[in-house]
Amino acid sequence: MSTTPLIPRTAGPRPGGRSARVQAAIHQAVRELLAEAPRDSLTVPAVATRAGVTPSTIYRRWGDLGQLLADVAVETLRPEATPEDTGSYQGDLLAWLEQYRDEMSSGPGRAMLRDVLGAGTENTGKCALYCTQQLDAIHERAAARGESTLATEAVLDGVVAPMMYRILFAAQAPTNEDVASWLDALLQAPRHST
Amino acid sequence: MSTTPLIPRTAGPRPGGRSARVQAAIHQAVRELLAEAPRDSLTVPAVATRAGVTPSTIYRRWGDLGQLLADVAVETLRPEATPEDTGSYQGDLLAWLEQYRDEMSSGPGRAMLRDVLGAGTENTGKCALYCTQQLDAIHERAAARGESTLATEAVLDGVVAPMMYRILFAAQAPTNEDVASWLDALLQAPRHST
Repeated sequence: MSTTPLIPRTAGPRPGGRSARVQAAIHQAVRELLAEAPRDSLTVPAVATRAGVTPSTIYRRWGDLGQLLADVAVETLRPEATPEDTGSYQGDLLAWLEQYRDEMSSGPGRAMLRDVLGAGTENTGKCALYCTQQLDAIHERAAARGESTLATEAVLDGVVAPMMYRILFAAQAPTNEDVASWLDALLQAPRHST
Repeated sequence: MSTTPLIPRTAGPRPGGRSARVQAAIHQAVRELLAEAPRDSLTVPAVATRAGVTPSTIYRRWGDLGQLLADVAVETLRPEATPEDTGSYQGDLLAWLEQYRDEMSSGPGRAMLRDVLGAGTENTGKCALYCTQQLDAIHERAAARGESTLATEAVLDGVVAPMMYRILFAAQAPTNEDVASWLDALLQAPRHST
């Protein structure tokens, strides 16, 4: 295993001022239109009209509709809260992993993953970053409690990865029992780090 | 774990006759055009002209360019040979997994994954099926040699899944050392099946 982190722990600065307000209006227009009609019927001109901008503003900033959809999807994936504190490391991990499984294997979760993965690499990195940050937060809370912990990368490889592989590629979605069994195997393996 | 296989082991019947020849001509046109110009510049009319069909033939069969690209990508992912016979189960697994890692993390491999994952579920299922069939073939050869083996699903969860997660989401691609280390952990775990 390498010693540098697989996923950079910091995201870039968020845009501010007028361009941020324009971006927010366009994101909001996409979310509204997605709630009203099938995703296949979405067009750049329709988003522009709803947001009160010209289509060229969208093409200039995002290139095409796919990139815009990926941007909106990854913004929706940004966690809104720190992971639930259940009082123990194993409990925190299981609660967060079950919630993540539930969200990602839902219809809207799959559509977001499709948008993010279809568009390219910057957004997939952000998606992994959010996941890593939540696992890091669980790790730090457990360390503060004095519990022995796993490396975040081990949880990514051992639980998050098979969960996502099944969601993306397999005919059967992963269950909470699968998640619990992958986590058990990991916690029982003789590879704990702190 | 469930007792039904995660990935169906059989693909549907392949189309025959005239429609198969039309499909082959259109696939070939896509591959030629992808070799000549950037993927973003590809259009349905250009593919139609090259293949000698009308654009409506393409729209009727595939719906849109994304579905056609996904179809071509998944056809390219179809394995051309049985996995190399190195003389042992561990050797066969390692050789195939390293080759798969090499192919999937390459530029063309990532582009294919993007096309397949961006388009929807039928093609992702085929992608997983090809992988499962190759692992099954390695499994059966080892069983015929009398070697103890892992369940194919354990190799998918323990090695293929973290490999694909890193290729799709992480900043750093997986290395052959990662693959060997995931496989070692799996072979040492007390969960062998036959």
